[in-house]
Amino acid sequence: MISSRASTTARACARTSGLLRQHQRRSLATVSSSLFPGEPSAPHLVTPAIPGPKSKDLSDRIGTFQENRAHGFVVDYAKSQGNWIADADGNVLLDMFAQIASIAIGYNNPDLIALAKTDEFITATMNRAALGSFPPTNWQELVETGLGTVKPKGLNNIFTAMCGSCANENAFKASFMAYRARERGDQAQFTPEEMQSCMKNQSPGSPDFSILSFTSAFHGRLFGSLSATRSKAIHKLDIPSFNWPVVAWPDVRYPLSQHARENAEAEKVSLAAVEEAIVNSKKTGSSNGPIAALIVEPIQSEGGDNHASPAFFQGLRDVTKKHGVFMIVDEVQTGVGATGAFWAHDKWNLTSPPDFVTFSKKMQAAGFYHNIDTRPSMPYRNYNTWMGDPTRTLQARQIIRTIQDHGLVEKTDQVGNYIHEKLTDVIENGAGRGKIEKLRGENAGTFIAFDGKTPEVRDKFIMEMRKLGVHMGGCGDKAVRLRPMLVFEQKHADLFLEKLDKALGQL
Amino acid sequence: MISSRASTTARACARTSGLLRQHQRRSLATVSSSLFPGEPSAPHLVTPAIPGPKSKDLSDRIGTFQENRAHGFVVDYAKSQGNWIADADGNVLLDMFAQIASIAIGYNNPDLIALAKTDEFITATMNRAALGSFPPTNWQELVETGLGTVKPKGLNNIFTAMCGSCANENAFKASFMAYRARERGDQAQFTPEEMQSCMKNQSPGSPDFSILSFTSAFHGRLFGSLSATRSKAIHKLDIPSFNWPVVAWPDVRYPLSQHARENAEAEKVSLAAVEEAIVNSKKTGSSNGPIAALIVEPIQSEGGDNHASPAFFQGLRDVTKKHGVFMIVDEVQTGVGATGAFWAHDKWNLTSPPDFVTFSKKMQAAGFYHNIDTRPSMPYRNYNTWMGDPTRTLQARQIIRTIQDHGLVEKTDQVGNYIHEKLTDVIENGAGRGKIEKLRGENAGTFIAFDGKTPEVRDKFIMEMRKLGVHMGGCGDKAVRLRPMLVFEQKHADLFLEKLDKALGQL
Repeated sequence: MISSRASTTARACARTSGLLRQHQRRSLATVSSSLFPGEPSAPHLVTPAIPGPKSKDLSDRIGTFQENRAHGFVVDYAKSQGNWIADADGNVLLDMFAQIASIAIGYNNPDLIALAKTDEFITATMNRAALGSFPPTNWQELVETGLGTVKPKGLNNIFTAMCGSCANENAFKASFMAYRARERGDQAQFTPEEMQSCMKNQSPGSPDFSILSFTSAFHGRLFGSLSATRSKAIHKLDIPSFNWPVVAWPDVRYPLSQHARENAEAEKVSLAAVEEAIVNSKKTGSSNGPIAALIVEPIQSEGGDNHASPAFFQGLRDVTKKHGVFMIVDEVQTGVGATGAFWAHDKWNLTSPPDFVTFSKKMQAAGFYHNIDTRPSMPYRNYNTWMGDPTRTLQARQIIRTIQDHGLVEKTDQVGNYIHEKLTDVIENGAGRGKIEKLRGENAGTFIAFDGKTPEVRDKFIMEMRKLGVHMGGCGDKAVRLRPMLVFEQKHADLFLEKLDKALGQL
Repeated sequence: MISSRASTTARACARTSGLLRQHQRRSLATVSSSLFPGEPSAPHLVTPAIPGPKSKDLSDRIGTFQENRAHGFVVDYAKSQGNWIADADGNVLLDMFAQIASIAIGYNNPDLIALAKTDEFITATMNRAALGSFPPTNWQELVETGLGTVKPKGLNNIFTAMCGSCANENAFKASFMAYRARERGDQAQFTPEEMQSCMKNQSPGSPDFSILSFTSAFHGRLFGSLSATRSKAIHKLDIPSFNWPVVAWPDVRYPLSQHARENAEAEKVSLAAVEEAIVNSKKTGSSNGPIAALIVEPIQSEGGDNHASPAFFQGLRDVTKKHGVFMIVDEVQTGVGATGAFWAHDKWNLTSPPDFVTFSKKMQAAGFYHNIDTRPSMPYRNYNTWMGDPTRTLQARQIIRTIQDHGLVEKTDQVGNYIHEKLTDVIENGAGRGKIEKLRGENAGTFIAFDGKTPEVRDKFIMEMRKLGVHMGGCGDKAVRLRPMLVFEQKHADLFLEKLDKALGQL
């Protein structure tokens, strides 16, 4: 065990350096200019359509050996900078999609480039450790001064993994093991019957436990995570699934604050359905096995940017706790600042923490936070060769530091409020009237979305924006989701709003 | 589509540069001295036991936030070099485990360090692409001059992924989609019933297809891959599984060449069981759904280093082809040279190629090779945010080039034969007699293993070797597996054999 003195010192150091960084914060207004002095002030468009001929040619060449039909355009990452993405043809667009919400602090961020040139980074990336068995000498310090500094309140353990899907699946595995350990009473004892039956994929060794998720949820695309995913048929068709149950996401209306009463009713209906599903799952003859965990996104992202109130999530915490079900908060897309809090679930002020918080995407590193009670009873149970990636863990630390140095979470909160207010006006009184609707993301940083009247309107809007030099992404059936980086400032927002106005005029 | 002239030119260039590299090959004897001039000539041991006090302390500190009970020792990667691993206490050991068979060309390989300092590498690692939608301008060239140069014979498509488990699972998904497309007749048509039922995890949209695997197989630890894994109960306990079938691995005797006749009989029994399982799976009322694919390791690694003959694998190809079942060859551990061929399955000389070959570990990049007939009918079906990692793809290219430059596959073949011959003598006539047995890996490069008489003897042997400065790993119940890097030469082998002799004397 780490000595309490050493631990105290480490914490004090972390605090001091955090304070120092706060003092060093540059003015909010100048963050992107100081980090990216060469950032363009307007899109640069050289081909009549995007993808242009060079993008198309490169995409076709990739198509000879790999799927290319989901290509947007081919990117010149070396020439991309800050909020701006450059393509193979020389077009430069304002990027509000950010590699599917995965770039936190801008393309070619100088802090990350400096990191890449350090011996620590080169050693880590060229000598990949099997972290679960042969961790590097700097692992403890690296995790404690990086991922450890943004532990969600109440969670002290960190499991590192490779991507969002496997972060969720490893959290499922930890849930199942902890659930069964509680049933079993003594964590260390497996029966011979369990040992033998699991080798045949049969119960009791391979129990019929299940994960509860919501309609429209997206939790990944591997076999366990896909069984909890309910976003689109195209994600699931032809793939065998676990018979895991689903409950309807509350049918809320937007803006949430103007529909508080009816939304509270809708959330009550959903909470009652969750409780019913849990209770039924534990009855003999249930169509699915006992629900061991519930997984939920703070804002359903891929499934259409669906929100709910903090009271709903508190309700989920209450009902899961009441029935001994673990609560997994999937912050793969919402985490790392974009909602105006480092973790979206920070805003819920839960009376007790969730059991697992999963992360990936903007963190670059992936994994989950949890507590000692969900650490498996024995080693090698939730284990694999790499157990994450020290390269990405180093980047995560730098991303966290850069976010803190520049106050990017608070900034994103402010910019998000600015955009939300302007968009409200555009939709109610401006060019958006009758064309776009259902604005979401009040008080959710830049994690904002709205719907096109139809899927076709949405698709056309995104293509018009691209023609005007703004790169955006959709989600759900007809939503446009804003997923800018944390270095997206008011000047970028103004440019976006200007182009939005034009694009809406084209619809 | 790439023009045929451009494609021919690219192939000619690749050939020319391959030939050039062959001409530049340094003498086999001097590879490790030239790449790693500072490589030690003997272990350096400074603590009476490993892990020493510093390793233990660091491991305990990690234990405050993460599982640490599977730690061997804590590693100083900056001080590790070539075949030698340095620990936190200053001990330096000959590494024959190589991060669970995941380091190909030595710690701190100068070619990889040079790569890390290139702008191409820094751009790739600091600006992570969503490869399936926004690939970088160099992606086509990078894949074609790297992973593309070692395509297994007969396979022209490459799917990139994050790790071995997800490589296998994405191959499962591709199998299921292709199997169902063939049943459906027209790939583009999904019925409304399929579209609706899959959202509830029900057939027909989520069909009850299965994957056939062998006893003792290891294919990963996520929910799909774990359902095909049959290595140890500890890997599977408490985790829900798909009800996928299993067939017994042929009960062969070693050395294979001295038991050809009885082994052929054992393999026939296993092949018959495979055919029976396939036929039964397609009958109404089968306990599992139709087998869409069979997955097999060329040498079962984690499960105990179990071998079979090329005729057995030809038999698997024949029976799977006969019944329209896809064949997935899992080369996650066997691939990239260690068996004395770049792909272990190269040695089978199959009459037609497998449908999928999966890779990870020593390649650093992960994924699978396949053909256009198993590319899904539509985009976004086998898709995720990252679709692999350009950083690791760059490393894969350099690893492949370094292997070719130094003829490391042929060298590994020679060194492996040397070790196998010496070990035969140690077991039959030397210090190993009555203590270790069942030598495997004749004509399999350095992919060699033997059993301790009991699990306890095996464990004691590995600990004795560590005390003598040689780091080794076990597998199965009582096997010791040799997993040195491809830069392991005769001098290292001699040192290993010398220490082995001493360790056996201690048993």
